[in-house]
Amino acid sequence: MIECFFDCSSPWTYLAFHNLQPMAAELGVEIEWRPILVGGIFNTVNPSVYEQRATPVPAKARYMKKDLEDWARHSGIAITFPPKVFPVNSVKAMRGCIWLAPQGKLLAFADAVFRAYWTDNLDISQDAVLAAVCESVGVDPAALLAGIAEPAVKDQLRLNTEEVVARGGFGSPTIFVNRTDMYFGNDRLPLIRDAVLAAQETA
Amino acid sequence: MIECFFDCSSPWTYLAFHNLQPMAAELGVEIEWRPILVGGIFNTVNPSVYEQRATPVPAKARYMKKDLEDWARHSGIAITFPPKVFPVNSVKAMRGCIWLAPQGKLLAFADAVFRAYWTDNLDISQDAVLAAVCESVGVDPAALLAGIAEPAVKDQLRLNTEEVVARGGFGSPTIFVNRTDMYFGNDRLPLIRDAVLAAQETA
Repeated sequence: MIECFFDCSSPWTYLAFHNLQPMAAELGVEIEWRPILVGGIFNTVNPSVYEQRATPVPAKARYMKKDLEDWARHSGIAITFPPKVFPVNSVKAMRGCIWLAPQGKLLAFADAVFRAYWTDNLDISQDAVLAAVCESVGVDPAALLAGIAEPAVKDQLRLNTEEVVARGGFGSPTIFVNRTDMYFGNDRLPLIRDAVLAAQETA
Repeated sequence: MIECFFDCSSPWTYLAFHNLQPMAAELGVEIEWRPILVGGIFNTVNPSVYEQRATPVPAKARYMKKDLEDWARHSGIAITFPPKVFPVNSVKAMRGCIWLAPQGKLLAFADAVFRAYWTDNLDISQDAVLAAVCESVGVDPAALLAGIAEPAVKDQLRLNTEEVVARGGFGSPTIFVNRTDMYFGNDRLPLIRDAVLAAQETA
């Protein structure tokens, strides 16, 4: 009933990834995890993100850093902002999520990627970092690096990104309840809860 | 312990104004309401708001409307967006809040102004609308219209606006816990709750 389009390169997405899981478990609903490249979204429908990065409003930038710290503490995770490398190229990591999905290891891998980037401040665009992430979740690094070079894996990441744009998304995380009811961001979880409960009542 | 700088011309502020009150009552803390003019903030430190209005991202604009509807339903209030007049000149309404504060009527008046603009879709810049709002909360309209012309009232609204900017604010609502711990927006109420509880534990 819940789909979550996500890119590990976004700190707000780490918060949603972390907080959505216990909520869905409590509500008794499954989450379908859909890896995307948020840069692909910004390029096609939301260039305002680049404008804001180019000409930041100082007061907003200061608050954003504090806000992330507040949310991380509230959520029980650690987020360093800005990390050493930002923005980061997450294409290999997100292709890794696609490749691991049929093996049931997308969730564990994505969690380890989020932690490597946002908590341990590592450059997840590097093969060595991804290899260590693989080993931490029992995945053969060489097999993953070969797997993410497959055209079908590359295509699926592109198709997911095109799909979320076609369905109205403009960033990460974009979350749908029952296919058409869209929510953006970690701070919309109370609204997602409302939507799932309403759907369960009328089911 | 909680200060809320607010302008009735913002729908997100209506949500925070509505939702903050039961939370503060439950936590046993007072809210100090500080009327401001959010346009004054945008002009001095956050012109990005005007840029976003001038070149909206269509997907974000569509979502914003739905998001407001979701939050209004979640909060048990009705918000029409966009209203007939937007943005609205709220200077008289906000001066009215200042003038009524010593009489203990700021809260009732602000609530009626929010409802007139966001629920009843009325132009709160008009004296006739403000007069009807006054009557709904037992305030003499002629006295209010005379009161808000007083230089001290005008000055106080300007000073409040300058103060929130000096303290790091960039929009409405801007909420402080214990003077320096700043939060922006209705969707940060869970973080404000954390902050009040933490302060009460160490008090």
